[in-house]
Amino acid sequence: MTQANSIAAPAYSALKRDRVLLAHGGGGQLTDELLADHVFPHISNRILDDLLDASDLGRQSGRLAFTIDSFVVQPWQFPGGDVGRLAIAGTVNDLAVTGAKPLAIALGVILAEGFPLANLDTVMNSVAATAKEANVRIATGDTKVVGHGHADGIYLITAGVGTIPTKRRLNPNRVRPGDKLILNGPIGEHGLAVMLAREMPDVRSVVTSDVAPLNSLTEALLAAGGNNVTFMRDPTRGGLSGLCADLAQRANLRVVLEESQILVHPAARHAADMLGLDPLDIANEGKVFVAVKPRAAEKVLRAMKSHPLGKDAAIVGHVEAASEGFCELHTQIGGRRIVQKPYGEQLPRIC
Amino acid sequence: MTQANSIAAPAYSALKRDRVLLAHGGGGQLTDELLADHVFPHISNRILDDLLDASDLGRQSGRLAFTIDSFVVQPWQFPGGDVGRLAIAGTVNDLAVTGAKPLAIALGVILAEGFPLANLDTVMNSVAATAKEANVRIATGDTKVVGHGHADGIYLITAGVGTIPTKRRLNPNRVRPGDKLILNGPIGEHGLAVMLAREMPDVRSVVTSDVAPLNSLTEALLAAGGNNVTFMRDPTRGGLSGLCADLAQRANLRVVLEESQILVHPAARHAADMLGLDPLDIANEGKVFVAVKPRAAEKVLRAMKSHPLGKDAAIVGHVEAASEGFCELHTQIGGRRIVQKPYGEQLPRIC
Repeated sequence: MTQANSIAAPAYSALKRDRVLLAHGGGGQLTDELLADHVFPHISNRILDDLLDASDLGRQSGRLAFTIDSFVVQPWQFPGGDVGRLAIAGTVNDLAVTGAKPLAIALGVILAEGFPLANLDTVMNSVAATAKEANVRIATGDTKVVGHGHADGIYLITAGVGTIPTKRRLNPNRVRPGDKLILNGPIGEHGLAVMLAREMPDVRSVVTSDVAPLNSLTEALLAAGGNNVTFMRDPTRGGLSGLCADLAQRANLRVVLEESQILVHPAARHAADMLGLDPLDIANEGKVFVAVKPRAAEKVLRAMKSHPLGKDAAIVGHVEAASEGFCELHTQIGGRRIVQKPYGEQLPRIC
Repeated sequence: MTQANSIAAPAYSALKRDRVLLAHGGGGQLTDELLADHVFPHISNRILDDLLDASDLGRQSGRLAFTIDSFVVQPWQFPGGDVGRLAIAGTVNDLAVTGAKPLAIALGVILAEGFPLANLDTVMNSVAATAKEANVRIATGDTKVVGHGHADGIYLITAGVGTIPTKRRLNPNRVRPGDKLILNGPIGEHGLAVMLAREMPDVRSVVTSDVAPLNSLTEALLAAGGNNVTFMRDPTRGGLSGLCADLAQRANLRVVLEESQILVHPAARHAADMLGLDPLDIANEGKVFVAVKPRAAEKVLRAMKSHPLGKDAAIVGHVEAASEGFCELHTQIGGRRIVQKPYGEQLPRIC
């Protein structure tokens, strides 16, 4: 009996090239080959290898956390990372800041026809390495191909599930006047690294993206602070401005930031000046902003400082009662200004 | 004290237009407006409205199922549905065929600059209606905007979580010789409806997509068949050919299909002939293929026939022992042929 696979083999060899073809997305033999050659070798694990329509993650305890994020960063590779690292870290961090232990990632890949397969390997390798670093597995996935010119290169979409310990609650509505605000390091580097790579590819800069999975840091700080930690968020799109303006509005409190305590590396400051941007508005991908009751602030700060991703942690502000929620910056020269959510697209396609 | 929001209001009014702007994706005030005006009104619910980085779905019992799918269908609207209905039904069905009760959907939206906001409303309305039909909620989401020409219109990405009752196991490796194969209706309609809409927009055809959430049908058939149901899958990309060739290979069995029992509507048959396609290879979005032990086949078939989405259900084949897994079609004129997984891109961008 002739076997199905052997019939089409010569046609496949003839077509095998070094770029993504539209036919790679048809759900047929070529899709299988694309996955077998360029996806599974990087991220193989027992659950993914089952190749069911949905993965079976088994029984779980705790509350279930669920998130999704699309990554359309341009260029797909930038100093300090690439879309693969960004997609895993971004979703791990969305879980981590809600207090969830990341359990599994679902990975959607949208490829443009013509995208070099070697670049796909680079991205998938980065996905795998970052997932390993964050101790999370890729449990399920999907790959689509769109025509040349219908997407630029590669988009990744990551959904994540995690489990939140039963008694842990992190929510803007738990933030109270007096809470201290802690940030784990300097701001602005991710957005600036991507912008420089895109807008000024010939400029050599030392600014590199801070993209990193933060779950081991958040677990360490929660172990130190327990339920004294009232809220966490990662200042990604919209930057620290967007985060604090949003928190102030939702908690209906005054969020006060001390400019002197917010680190900006000199190279990042220079790049932001050159691009006409405020570092407060720029996206970070390896920063976490923590609200904590004052009695536990020093303990949480120490726990953060003893972690490699928190060594530059500092108390950057506090929360006050207010009749109307807003965010205020105490500037280094002694002034005060309102911090607003950035308006629109100062930094397109940075994640 | 001047409030943050009031400062930017005039600028926003001046910019407010009827199409998606790049600035809608910046994570700032314009992103909030886009979501507030065109997304949340359609899909609002208590969990989504919390707007946390990850949604808290609470404690769950049973095993956890997890899936993701990207939807890049072109055109975004087609006879019988649109990308919104497709995205919800597709992910609900991936959960349903693994035996999971859909719990929540995470929705990623990638918009191209210039996409009409009225069309976004149509899509989101369709998302909401289909989610309601499937009794599943949109728990979390993410919206990105890419430049004009970098994506054609709108891509949706849906991840889903569900719970599988502890003792339920549906897996190719549970399929045994003698199992009957049941399909819930005619094939080929989704792929053909999309292809006709794209390639022959001036041709009027009665072929409409079968896109529908199947979870109430699968729950009904599982209630009838219990653990006698050994495997289910929805024949989407790759069609019934791809599904059966894959099942045969993974279960290492001979999958026998009876052409006379596989329904193809005359209009679909005509369209497939015109496009030079085999209905067996064409994607469906409202069909489920069920393997069931022979003793329960009639009972499962009756349960399916009494459901609106299963009224045309039929036993379309069976499984035999084989030294090497393959799929064989018994044709209507008494012949036999091997059914292969389609090679590549006969039907690009149909989901």
